[in-house]
Amino acid sequence: MTKTLKAGILGATGTVGQRFISLLSEHPHFKIHALGASPRSAGKPYERATKWKMAKAMPKEVRQHIVKTCDPRDEFLECDVVFSGLDADVAGEIEMAFMKANIPLFSNAKNYRTHPEVPLIVPLTNSSHFDLIPHQRTKHNLDKGFLVTNANCSTTGLVVPLGALQDAFGPLSKVMVTTMQAISGAGYPGVASLDILDNVVPHIGGEEPKMEWETLKILGSLNKDKSGFDLLTNTKVSATCNRVPVIDGHLMSVSIEFARQPAPSVEEITRVLENYRTEAQELGCYSAPEHAIIVSQEEDRPQPRLDRDNGNGYSVTVGRIRPCPIFDVKFTLLIHNTILGAAGSGILNAEIAQKKGYIV
Amino acid sequence: MTKTLKAGILGATGTVGQRFISLLSEHPHFKIHALGASPRSAGKPYERATKWKMAKAMPKEVRQHIVKTCDPRDEFLECDVVFSGLDADVAGEIEMAFMKANIPLFSNAKNYRTHPEVPLIVPLTNSSHFDLIPHQRTKHNLDKGFLVTNANCSTTGLVVPLGALQDAFGPLSKVMVTTMQAISGAGYPGVASLDILDNVVPHIGGEEPKMEWETLKILGSLNKDKSGFDLLTNTKVSATCNRVPVIDGHLMSVSIEFARQPAPSVEEITRVLENYRTEAQELGCYSAPEHAIIVSQEEDRPQPRLDRDNGNGYSVTVGRIRPCPIFDVKFTLLIHNTILGAAGSGILNAEIAQKKGYIV
Amino acid sequence: MTKTLKAGILGATGTVGQRFISLLSEHPHFKIHALGASPRSAGKPYERATKWKMAKAMPKEVRQHIVKTCDPRDEFLECDVVFSGLDADVAGEIEMAFMKANIPLFSNAKNYRTHPEVPLIVPLTNSSHFDLIPHQRTKHNLDKGFLVTNANCSTTGLVVPLGALQDAFGPLSKVMVTTMQAISGAGYPGVASLDILDNVVPHIGGEEPKMEWETLKILGSLNKDKSGFDLLTNTKVSATCNRVPVIDGHLMSVSIEFARQPAPSVEEITRVLENYRTEAQELGCYSAPEHAIIVSQEEDRPQPRLDRDNGNGYSVTVGRIRPCPIFDVKFTLLIHNTILGAAGSGILNAEIAQKKGYIV
Amino acid sequence: MTKTLKAGILGATGTVGQRFISLLSEHPHFKIHALGASPRSAGKPYERATKWKMAKAMPKEVRQHIVKTCDPRDEFLECDVVFSGLDADVAGEIEMAFMKANIPLFSNAKNYRTHPEVPLIVPLTNSSHFDLIPHQRTKHNLDKGFLVTNANCSTTGLVVPLGALQDAFGPLSKVMVTTMQAISGAGYPGVASLDILDNVVPHIGGEEPKMEWETLKILGSLNKDKSGFDLLTNTKVSATCNRVPVIDGHLMSVSIEFARQPAPSVEEITRVLENYRTEAQELGCYSAPEHAIIVSQEEDRPQPRLDRDNGNGYSVTVGRIRPCPIFDVKFTLLIHNTILGAAGSGILNAEIAQKKGYIV
Repeated sequence: MTKTLKAGILGATGTVGQRFISLLSEHPHFKIHALGASPRSAGKPYERATKWKMAKAMPKEVRQHIVKTCDPRDEFLECDVVFSGLDADVAGEIEMAFMKANIPLFSNAKNYRTHPEVPLIVPLTNSSHFDLIPHQRTKHNLDKGFLVTNANCSTTGLVVPLGALQDAFGPLSKVMVTTMQAISGAGYPGVASLDILDNVVPHIGGEEPKMEWETLKILGSLNKDKSGFDLLTNTKVSATCNRVPVIDGHLMSVSIEFARQPAPSVEEITRVLENYRTEAQELGCYSAPEHAIIVSQEEDRPQPRLDRDNGNGYSVTVGRIRPCPIFDVKFTLLIHNTILGAAGSGILNAEIAQKKGYIV
Repeated sequence: MTKTLKAGILGATGTVGQRFISLLSEHPHFKIHALGASPRSAGKPYERATKWKMAKAMPKEVRQHIVKTCDPRDEFLECDVVFSGLDADVAGEIEMAFMKANIPLFSNAKNYRTHPEVPLIVPLTNSSHFDLIPHQRTKHNLDKGFLVTNANCSTTGLVVPLGALQDAFGPLSKVMVTTMQAISGAGYPGVASLDILDNVVPHIGGEEPKMEWETLKILGSLNKDKSGFDLLTNTKVSATCNRVPVIDGHLMSVSIEFARQPAPSVEEITRVLENYRTEAQELGCYSAPEHAIIVSQEEDRPQPRLDRDNGNGYSVTVGRIRPCPIFDVKFTLLIHNTILGAAGSGILNAEIAQKKGYIV
Repeated sequence: MTKTLKAGILGATGTVGQRFISLLSEHPHFKIHALGASPRSAGKPYERATKWKMAKAMPKEVRQHIVKTCDPRDEFLECDVVFSGLDADVAGEIEMAFMKANIPLFSNAKNYRTHPEVPLIVPLTNSSHFDLIPHQRTKHNLDKGFLVTNANCSTTGLVVPLGALQDAFGPLSKVMVTTMQAISGAGYPGVASLDILDNVVPHIGGEEPKMEWETLKILGSLNKDKSGFDLLTNTKVSATCNRVPVIDGHLMSVSIEFARQPAPSVEEITRVLENYRTEAQELGCYSAPEHAIIVSQEEDRPQPRLDRDNGNGYSVTVGRIRPCPIFDVKFTLLIHNTILGAAGSGILNAEIAQKKGYIV
Repeated sequence: MTKTLKAGILGATGTVGQRFISLLSEHPHFKIHALGASPRSAGKPYERATKWKMAKAMPKEVRQHIVKTCDPRDEFLECDVVFSGLDADVAGEIEMAFMKANIPLFSNAKNYRTHPEVPLIVPLTNSSHFDLIPHQRTKHNLDKGFLVTNANCSTTGLVVPLGALQDAFGPLSKVMVTTMQAISGAGYPGVASLDILDNVVPHIGGEEPKMEWETLKILGSLNKDKSGFDLLTNTKVSATCNRVPVIDGHLMSVSIEFARQPAPSVEEITRVLENYRTEAQELGCYSAPEHAIIVSQEEDRPQPRLDRDNGNGYSVTVGRIRPCPIFDVKFTLLIHNTILGAAGSGILNAEIAQKKGYIV
């Protein structure tokens, strides 16, 4: 039987924090134990500290929960695991302090994603990278604590099928991706309605380099002694990011080229994506979707509004797999950006870590 | 002084037809003389035959104009030029009949775009292709009539900067484009609101092959004796087309590779696009925009809602010119799909044809 | 224990039919047994006969189910209950034929709502009107069959709080309501995207008279011998209906005046709405929401996107209860138009009918 | 000939300020002479001080114009007229200082609308209220300066037809109005996209009391000695305000009752609205629309996207005039909230003031 874990949430009043609360409140293996936010919110009951923006109503259990500051003490020290939905401008110091306080921390912030000794884990793709934790603990002299990040929401959607294909057919040489990203990715208030109604904004600050770099770390491997990462060096990624008037769900047009030539056929690729199994499923993780990748055969799918909740928001949906006149193959993919693309990744990562014995 | 031309409009009650009427009614060199539509509409005053969907009110001059069937007789025979906004399922026979009746016809339909003896002309790009008209007239024994088509709305936006770059730097070897297209491109009723609100549809029937093929004809050249076209053979185009909840304005993420290596720099490319001059401007055509291409320096432009009316909808706006990690350069472009991308192309083509002496 | 009922669905391929399927497939007391649609769809497996438009995926159990024509024979004769999502232009004859074939029929169509011997039932409001069924059966010589309709989606939302207030404070003299209705109310393809994006359409054909008339029947009473209905005669209703770019959820601004003066206070009204209990709850119906009416205290609620799923779409949410400078009190209400406002009403009505012994 | 006036703009970088610049730059009788904004913007060229959000490009003449603080000195003292698009939190002191500096000031802010000695003028409705200016000047010892405000955007739309009807048929006893207001009314960034996409927000802070009170002042009259205003006392107004996902254009459902009974017929009302002439037209003001009120006969109009630009945004469009089951008559109206509803009112007011000799 899976032990129920006491969970803390940093940045609990923001949009990522709200999603953590919404998902954890219905989760059988976690109990929300600590809520952290800025000093402005601290001391208030949660319902008065936040402007709740989820379509699902605020869980009763957190309404009266008193919000604390984001310090690794009191309730947080009692947590088995802490999730961070902090903004990047404050995440750096706070998250490091939590790790050093011997707390297992799963961060959604970008700050440590590029750190050479912090795993950047997409739970459906590179859960093997958890094996860097012993090195991290040794270095910082910890017995329970560690720091793991999940990836950018768009990167997460992209690497799931790419990883499945790389496993099956070897390295990709080129990946060209154009995203159409939902407004929820920008938090709240985030995108002004005057900027996005009847409009598309062809730029998202910092997003393109993140997609291009994170992909190489996630699809790379642990080094031999499990003390660092060997990034991909022979895969080129070119990303263009656009914001569209969609609430949830990042859609991407992708074109890829394999190192191996002749490349696998559309049929072979389809079969590999449909049959892709991942460690989270093998371990029986609660949030792991039945299908990590759902392949749609309809010519006009996936669509954000109709497919974002596939696998309860934990599946990546792929469609329109077809030859590319320039590279080998093109397809369209969709990820629920605030579930698998953010809070859900953190939670599923924690489930994997627990199953693998890294949370005790 | 420019002679005022009597203009007929085929498919006058549809969305392209409405745009032709809206643009021609304010045009100093055209006078609307004949309106053609289906037998169901024929015989009615225009205001009762159509469900007007333009934001600009229906011009007074056409309200009481009696709609005719699309036959090359009566008022249509008196026209100096006829514009066709017909649907493809009826355009084939009707447009051929008009040409054979010795009427200069500018078609927005796809039927004859691939025909080896019909020019496919984007007015800001390949107006030199008008020089096939003498061959067409000889073949069909005409002295005034001809048949010219404009391109698909997305192709039109794409080829304007590509043509400018090809002129300056020689052939492109690879063009990868992902579109985000407005709903007005699908006509009326067109896209159901349940399909597009809070959504993106990653498929537009037939659009991708059109972009990939038409580009090769438009950027190709007339053959030596001006009796046909030499399509590009060394340029590969890969297009992915998406529908987004935007009223007007097709946005595209483009990445290109030049045959010439080293490729021109971002600065050289920017300069060429900014300074691009086209025959329509040299000839002093009324609808020719001051700048065929407007280069935006803001990092989050062009945007459909803010930039689609640039140059009164006759300019293509380009932004975010930057290096591509895979090809040479990436940029974003925007075209007003129902002005330069449809009716406006027909009108500007007619202006060019008049200036060049093909309309008498 | 509640007996599981075999359910048939007429108009199974339309949007209301899809919602019936979606709700029934997860319902513990119904089993989908027969699917009826037009002759064009009949004979095909359901997944090939329909263009599924729900965000929740098509239930597996219906994918291969062969669609039949809407005739009261074969599988339909084996059904314990049949739900009709038929369009009004065909519902009249078909529904009557089903009732005469001794089948309990719950219709969402408007055809029989105004019939003097057909109950028009909003399940949270006037379930007492089921007691006309014995009269109906006697008249048509039936022992099992009957015909009951639910109300227009907007009427349904309106009468729930009005009924609660009428119960508590006596008749209303005046009801002024302005609706802002979701596009899903118009079915598929329904509202063209060009008509509603960046727009509001201030007219919905036939909707205003429906709201004004149906309210009087629903809030009226059965006559003495339970053979007909006494409509309200002293309540005036004025409705204005608008279509807004919202997927699901009809929002309404309501102002009311009580016959009784002085009128109840805002506090009294709030208390009555919050504490409103309805027969569906007393009977323990599966779909009955915990709260028939949810009163929101936040000044900017209810909102369609955030509140439409309250009570799984079976609650009406009321907010902004405040004095009206002209009438007595104003408030805003929200109903999920395709759940409680359509298919859900039919299903909850069937649950009530079963509990009351009208389905055997 | 009309003298060209030097115009200053306060709050020039905000959305109302941008609209002032956009309208004035194309106006033959105004020349933009001074731009004022917050100290943070002061000293910068306008194009670097602002984030331009108009669909029409920023006028060349202001790009390099150096922004000043909002003090009544330097360039502002040379202005013939100053328009204020300031936010309410700073408008109070600044606007009073400008008036006292003997500058004719037209304010769009709410601060002085309720002041007993400041005219609140909707240019198509109560331009007679300008005649309080002599009293204002006497009191403050000015020979050129004065302070006039225009009304709230929604109020402005409402009072134009109400004023026309009151002129023709005498006082209204009751006015019930429900608005559906565009996002541009909230400025920039204003409404968060997560709050309004696929949604309606049934609350706009402070808007309902504004509509209910301002209407009584505007439709009231100057007192006998032109030193103050007699507000309407026998007209009750009840307003409910909603925010909808529309860029520009406030739509309203209105129901009214006349004091005079029997009330005028729908036909009489229609005729009065169609034929309504206003002083701005009689004086030949440049921005005065040909028709102050446009009556649409189509059953589904006015619509924001199709009708907001009627009369270049200076007309009010009225449709669906029909009997009300409770009051006398119902109709729908539309106003362009950022043209006639804001900056345009200020400009048209200035034109009237010039024609009437109050600007010298």
